[in-house]
Amino acid sequence: MRKIALLYNPSKEQACSIRDELNRLLTDGGIAVTHIAVDHATDILAVDPDIRFVELAMVLGGDGTLLGIARQLAPYHIPLLGINIGHLGFLTESEPSQLQPAVARILQNEYNLEHRMMLEAEVIRNGQSLAKFSALNEVGTGKGSFARMVTVDVHVDDVYVDTYRGDGVIISTPTGSTAYSLSCGGPIVSPNLQVMVITPVCPHTLFSRPCVIDANQTVRLTVRASHSDLGMTVDGQDGLHLLSGDEIIVKRAPYETTLVRWPDREFFGVLRSKLHNGNGDGPSPT
Amino acid sequence: MRKIALLYNPSKEQACSIRDELNRLLTDGGIAVTHIAVDHATDILAVDPDIRFVELAMVLGGDGTLLGIARQLAPYHIPLLGINIGHLGFLTESEPSQLQPAVARILQNEYNLEHRMMLEAEVIRNGQSLAKFSALNEVGTGKGSFARMVTVDVHVDDVYVDTYRGDGVIISTPTGSTAYSLSCGGPIVSPNLQVMVITPVCPHTLFSRPCVIDANQTVRLTVRASHSDLGMTVDGQDGLHLLSGDEIIVKRAPYETTLVRWPDREFFGVLRSKLHNGNGDGPSPT
Amino acid sequence: MRKIALLYNPSKEQACSIRDELNRLLTDGGIAVTHIAVDHATDILAVDPDIRFVELAMVLGGDGTLLGIARQLAPYHIPLLGINIGHLGFLTESEPSQLQPAVARILQNEYNLEHRMMLEAEVIRNGQSLAKFSALNEVGTGKGSFARMVTVDVHVDDVYVDTYRGDGVIISTPTGSTAYSLSCGGPIVSPNLQVMVITPVCPHTLFSRPCVIDANQTVRLTVRASHSDLGMTVDGQDGLHLLSGDEIIVKRAPYETTLVRWPDREFFGVLRSKLHNGNGDGPSPT
Amino acid sequence: MRKIALLYNPSKEQACSIRDELNRLLTDGGIAVTHIAVDHATDILAVDPDIRFVELAMVLGGDGTLLGIARQLAPYHIPLLGINIGHLGFLTESEPSQLQPAVARILQNEYNLEHRMMLEAEVIRNGQSLAKFSALNEVGTGKGSFARMVTVDVHVDDVYVDTYRGDGVIISTPTGSTAYSLSCGGPIVSPNLQVMVITPVCPHTLFSRPCVIDANQTVRLTVRASHSDLGMTVDGQDGLHLLSGDEIIVKRAPYETTLVRWPDREFFGVLRSKLHNGNGDGPSPT
Repeated sequence: MRKIALLYNPSKEQACSIRDELNRLLTDGGIAVTHIAVDHATDILAVDPDIRFVELAMVLGGDGTLLGIARQLAPYHIPLLGINIGHLGFLTESEPSQLQPAVARILQNEYNLEHRMMLEAEVIRNGQSLAKFSALNEVGTGKGSFARMVTVDVHVDDVYVDTYRGDGVIISTPTGSTAYSLSCGGPIVSPNLQVMVITPVCPHTLFSRPCVIDANQTVRLTVRASHSDLGMTVDGQDGLHLLSGDEIIVKRAPYETTLVRWPDREFFGVLRSKLHNGNGDGPSPT
Repeated sequence: MRKIALLYNPSKEQACSIRDELNRLLTDGGIAVTHIAVDHATDILAVDPDIRFVELAMVLGGDGTLLGIARQLAPYHIPLLGINIGHLGFLTESEPSQLQPAVARILQNEYNLEHRMMLEAEVIRNGQSLAKFSALNEVGTGKGSFARMVTVDVHVDDVYVDTYRGDGVIISTPTGSTAYSLSCGGPIVSPNLQVMVITPVCPHTLFSRPCVIDANQTVRLTVRASHSDLGMTVDGQDGLHLLSGDEIIVKRAPYETTLVRWPDREFFGVLRSKLHNGNGDGPSPT
Repeated sequence: MRKIALLYNPSKEQACSIRDELNRLLTDGGIAVTHIAVDHATDILAVDPDIRFVELAMVLGGDGTLLGIARQLAPYHIPLLGINIGHLGFLTESEPSQLQPAVARILQNEYNLEHRMMLEAEVIRNGQSLAKFSALNEVGTGKGSFARMVTVDVHVDDVYVDTYRGDGVIISTPTGSTAYSLSCGGPIVSPNLQVMVITPVCPHTLFSRPCVIDANQTVRLTVRASHSDLGMTVDGQDGLHLLSGDEIIVKRAPYETTLVRWPDREFFGVLRSKLHNGNGDGPSPT
Repeated sequence: MRKIALLYNPSKEQACSIRDELNRLLTDGGIAVTHIAVDHATDILAVDPDIRFVELAMVLGGDGTLLGIARQLAPYHIPLLGINIGHLGFLTESEPSQLQPAVARILQNEYNLEHRMMLEAEVIRNGQSLAKFSALNEVGTGKGSFARMVTVDVHVDDVYVDTYRGDGVIISTPTGSTAYSLSCGGPIVSPNLQVMVITPVCPHTLFSRPCVIDANQTVRLTVRASHSDLGMTVDGQDGLHLLSGDEIIVKRAPYETTLVRWPDREFFGVLRSKLHNGNGDGPSPT
C-alpha cells in the first residue's frame, strides 16, 4: 500500500484544514496517510521513525517550512512536495486551491523529481570538530548587530582565495542563490548546476565580489574578530555561536533534497514572478 | 596661557611614546598640556571636566578612537586633531612621523577648522523616549547574526518612504558615507554637504536603493520583527537592544564635530588613497 | 488675458484628442491657448517666439517629451505641467483622465511651483569652446557599442578626483538621479537638493563609487581613448561626437526647470510606485 | 623536429626584441621557430597555413592580443603561451624577464594544459543566418553612446527568461567573468566550470540580476529598439551592427582555448593580485 506523510506548520493559518482535506483526498485514493505538526524545533524522525519509508512527504507551509524539513529528511531520500500557504515560493510547488489536481497527479504518478544539491558544514574549534550541519540554501558566518566587523579568510581546496572584512560571508547552493545571497549581490544560479557561490556580505574591501566555484571543492572559512558577537547559520534557521579562530569546512553533502515537480513547472517563470514583485528572498521568516 | 588636551588610546602600541613626545614639544612651545587615556568606556568629561576649556584636543589613535571622542566632545565645540596610529584615516590628519611640524603649525595657528554635521537619534518605545545618542558616522538598526530578517518602515518628515526588509537600515552623515554605508552600496558624499543618506543593508526587496535627503529633514525608522535579535548602533560603537515596534527618530544634531585640518589637506586625495587600497571603511575595529 | 501653451508630442497616440479637449476646457475658462506639435527636432522659440510670455505650458507626452521641452523653455522661466500619456512619470503630473480637475485647479491658481536645478555643459576641444548644452537629467560621456573602454579623468573645482576606466561617466542632477544614473548604481536624491552625482558607468576599477558633490562646484571631465567611438549626451536625447582629449565642463545652470505641482503631490509616493514596478528610469525612449 | 610559433603584437614596445630573444633561445634548444606579426586585422591562417601543425604558439602581447589569437587558433587545438608585455594578465602566463626559464620548461615539457570553454554566436536576421563569431570572453549586445536604451528578450533553451531594458546584455564564459561582465556586476567564475553568465548592463529594471546557467544550454537574445544605434561584439574586439528584431544565438563552441600553464600557476593568486589593484578587467584595450 502506498504511503504519504503530511507535514504541516501549525503556526500557519489554514494548515490544519488543508491537512484534513488532503488526508481525505489521499485516503479516498487508497493511500495511507500519516501526519505530523512540525515547528522549527521538531525532531521528525524521533516523532515518527517510520517516515523513512513513505513514498513522499507533502509539506504544508512556506519555503521556510520546507527548508527545515528538507534538512531533516534529505538523508533519507524522501521526495518533498511543498504546498505553499502564503506567497508563491521557489521551493513549494502547489497552491492550496489546487489540492484535488495535485492529489490526482500523485495518484497517477504524473510528477517529476528534481534534485537539489545540499551542503554540509563542520565547525572546527582548536582542531576538534564542534558541530555538523546540513543546508539547502546556504551556510553563513557573520557578526551580530553590535559588532563592527568580522574578518574571514577563505580557502578553496586549501588554496588561499582572499580575506573578507565586513558583515560576513555566505556559501550558497544554487537553491540558495535566490535567497540571502541574492540580497548580498550574489548571482542567480540555475538550480541544477553543481556549484557553490561564495558571497561576501557588505564587504569593506570594495573589490570583493561573489565567486562561483565547483561543488566538488571544499571551502574553509576562518573567522577572526576582536569580539565574540559571531555566529554561523544554516538556511537562516539553525546555527551556532562562534569564537575568533573557529573554522567552518563547507562541502557538498552526500545526499540531496528531492522535490516533487509538476511537468509544466519551469524555474524562470517562478523567478520572474518573484523578482518582478521585488522579492528575491526565498523563504520568509518563520 | 594656551592649553591643549592629549587624548590617547592606550591599547594602541606607540600611543604612550607619542603622547610623551607631543607633551614635550607642546610644553617647550609654552602650551599647557593635559592628557587622558581614553578607551571606549571612558567618560572624558567625568575624568576631566576642565577639558571643555582647551583650545583643541589631539587624539592619538585611529578613526575609531576619534569617532568615540567626537561623540563626547562635539557638544563643547572642541576642535579635534587626529594623529593616526596605524593606517591612514579619513578623520585623522597627522602621521606619528610628523609630530614636530604638526606642533609647529599649531603654535603658529596655521590650521583650518572643518565642520562635520552629526546626527542625534532618539529611541521611542511605547510612545516614551528610551534613550538618546549622537553619531558622527551613522545610526543603524539591524538584526543579529541568527535572525533571518528585520522589517523597517521609513518615514521622512512624517511622509511614508518605503518598507525595507533585510539586514537593516543605516542613516549616514556625509562623514559616514565612506564608512559602513559605502560597504552597503551607499554613495560617497562630500563631507561639507548638509545631507543624510538612507542606506538599506542587504535588502530582500531588490529595487531598494540608497537615498540622499536634506539634513533638515527628520527620519523615523519603525522596526518590526517576529524575533528579538534586534539592535540599533551609533558609529558601530555604541547602541541598544530593540524590540519589535520600537521607533528611532534621527535628525541632524544641533552641534558639529570640528576637525583641525592642515591647509594642504584635500578630501579626494585621502579618498583615492583609501579606495585604491580597496578600503572604504573609515574606522577599523577598535 | 491669461495665456497657456499646449505642447504635444504628435507621435503619441491620444495626444491630439487630449490637446483638443484641453483647448476647449481652457478656452471655456477664458484662457487664450496656443498649441505646438513638438518632436525632438522642433525649435519651439523659432516656431512661436511669443511662447516666452505664456503663464504656463502644458506638455502632453511622457517624461522624455517634457525633458526636451524643459531644456528649451527653462531659460524663460515658463512653468511646465506634464500630462503623461503612457506610464506614470517622475516629471509629468496629471493623467489624461483628470483633465477637467487639472484645468479647474489652473483656473483657480491652486497649484505649487517646484524648482529643479539644471546643468550646463561646455565641450572644450584644443582649448576652444566647441558647444554648449543644458540638461535636466544628466550629462554623460561614454564609448559606443564597439569600443572596449574609455578613460575619464575627473576634476572637481580643479582638484583631481580620480580616473575612471569603463563605459563612461554621468553627471546627474537630483532629477536625473532616478533615471540613467540609477541604472548605473547611483543613489536616489531628493529633488530639491542642490547637489550633483558623479556616477561611473560599468567601471573596470572595482572600487569606483558614485559620488555626491555640491552643485556649486564645477566638474571637469577629460576623455581619453585610443579610438574615436566616443560621445557626450544630455538627457540621453542630444549630444556630440567627441575626440580623445576633449574636455566637458559641467556646472549648475543659471536657470531652473519650473514644474507645476498639485498640492497633494509627493515625491516618495511616485518613487515607490515606479520602483516597485521595477522601473527606475525616468523617461522612456522617445 | 619540434616546432613553435611566435605571434607578436608589433604595436607593443619590446615585442620585437623579445621575439628575437625567444627565437634564439628556442633555436638553440633545437626547436624550429616561425614568427608572425599579428594585429587585430591579421588573418593568421592566411599568412601561414602551416601554423596548424606547431606544437604551441607563444603570444607576445597582453590579454587583448591573446584573446584575438585564441579566436583564430582555438579550432586547431594549438596551445597558447602568453608572454605578457605590460601588466600582469589573466591569460598571459610569463613575464619578459623570465624567458629563459620559460623556454627551459618548454624544452623539458614541464607544463600543463588548461582548457577554457568558448562561445559561438550566430546572428539571425529575418530568419537567415547573417554571421557567426566565436568568443573566449563574452558575446555582448548593446546600444551605442547616443541611444537611450535597448530592449533584449532572453530565452534559454527556448524558455522565456526575462526582458532586459538598459544598455545591453552580455553572455560571458568563465574566462570572461573577470573581464567586462565583472564591471557590470557579474560574479567571478572558476575558469574550469562549464557555465555561462547572463549579465544585464545597466538595467533600468532594477530587479535584474546576473544569472549563471549550464553551458549546455542555448541562449537566444532578441534585440528591440526604436533606433538603429545597436551592435553586437565578441571579446570587445570584433562585432557587427544590428537592426531591431535581430536575434543572437549563443552556445558553447565545439572547441576550446588551450593555455600553457606552469605547474605553480594558481587562479586565485592572479585574481587577488588584479582585484587588489582595483583592476577587474582582463584585457586592456588594444
